[in-house]
Amino acid sequence: MALARVQNFSISLDGFGTGEGLTADAPFGHAGERLHEWMFATRWWSGPGGSGGVDDLFARQFDAGIGAEIMGAGKYGPAGWHEDPDWKGWWGPNPPFHTPVLVLTHHPRPPLEMEGGTTFRFLDASPAEALEAAREAAQGKDVRIGGGPTVVRDFLAARLVDHAHIAVVPILLGRGVRLWDGLEGLESDYRIETIPSPGGVTHLTLTRV
Amino acid sequence: MALARVQNFSISLDGFGTGEGLTADAPFGHAGERLHEWMFATRWWSGPGGSGGVDDLFARQFDAGIGAEIMGAGKYGPAGWHEDPDWKGWWGPNPPFHTPVLVLTHHPRPPLEMEGGTTFRFLDASPAEALEAAREAAQGKDVRIGGGPTVVRDFLAARLVDHAHIAVVPILLGRGVRLWDGLEGLESDYRIETIPSPGGVTHLTLTRV
Repeated sequence: MALARVQNFSISLDGFGTGEGLTADAPFGHAGERLHEWMFATRWWSGPGGSGGVDDLFARQFDAGIGAEIMGAGKYGPAGWHEDPDWKGWWGPNPPFHTPVLVLTHHPRPPLEMEGGTTFRFLDASPAEALEAAREAAQGKDVRIGGGPTVVRDFLAARLVDHAHIAVVPILLGRGVRLWDGLEGLESDYRIETIPSPGGVTHLTLTRV
Repeated sequence: MALARVQNFSISLDGFGTGEGLTADAPFGHAGERLHEWMFATRWWSGPGGSGGVDDLFARQFDAGIGAEIMGAGKYGPAGWHEDPDWKGWWGPNPPFHTPVLVLTHHPRPPLEMEGGTTFRFLDASPAEALEAAREAAQGKDVRIGGGPTVVRDFLAARLVDHAHIAVVPILLGRGVRLWDGLEGLESDYRIETIPSPGGVTHLTLTRV
């Protein structure tokens, strides 16, 4: 059975998955890239000079066995991107997904085929409907719930996530968008494990029981 | 030099140090005692049948070398306790502190001597003033910043804490009082380490650099 998975989703110690003040030049607002430095430092990301330990093991699960991603409108672009017909995401001509990507938006537009196998499809749907569409697009592979924080939270709240990997970075952002809001009692339905990395990041895994 | 220390301060995965709906019968509101079960399970708390691993090592630091505690009004009693002249805290005639305890309150009252060496003193003071008074009362030993979450946060924000031990319990409370609010950038002044326990709790230590 193909799974719905969250991979490499990074939050601060105080629970923020993104900062405040998101713009086209600052996709994570005042957080900058601080939530993701652990991942950039891995061999998976940066090649032979990178770290080869537990951070790398987790990072590599990002695309292993993944056939499609679901992302929120806030991950695809800065507020108002739907008014710009030329907006094609932050990632340039060859985005790092290499699968169909379903973008949840109240302003659907025609599909957008990029280089490298990424196709953005836009749909206005509930989490359950989106997951059904993504499973079909994934053709038997797993579906990654790609974020942002609100989307991960909504899928967790609906118990649609089978397995989640959350990386807790030891910084305090103080403001932004929280991952854990409104998830009281989640531990009843997920087994939670903690794996610290020598680099300072703490990896959490949540596995639906 | 005597230190100001936070010990065994427990929060949920979503950052709450206490629940919602605190009453005289439910000091932690809907959280109940779930934030502290890890501590009750240790040899330090429950005797020879308890767990003897990393949870126990941390738990034992609660009173080791401590000469005084500072606590907030919300830890001493339920809202409105200052209107009850007979309120003597939640802990019965022999509270588990066995040192002077400085209670921060806007409604000071005369000191209260309990059994076992605990004396409650009540003062209306800033964190820095309270710490000065507590250091004097501790007679060369360390001062424990005892909570609740608002008090720990205020002392961290003022950089008055030398060392903090925070136990992150893998439950999501969803509501209550958050520890980490308003502490943006704390990592610049503290070295943060993570130690997972086989029992599921993650111990964080913050050491001022």
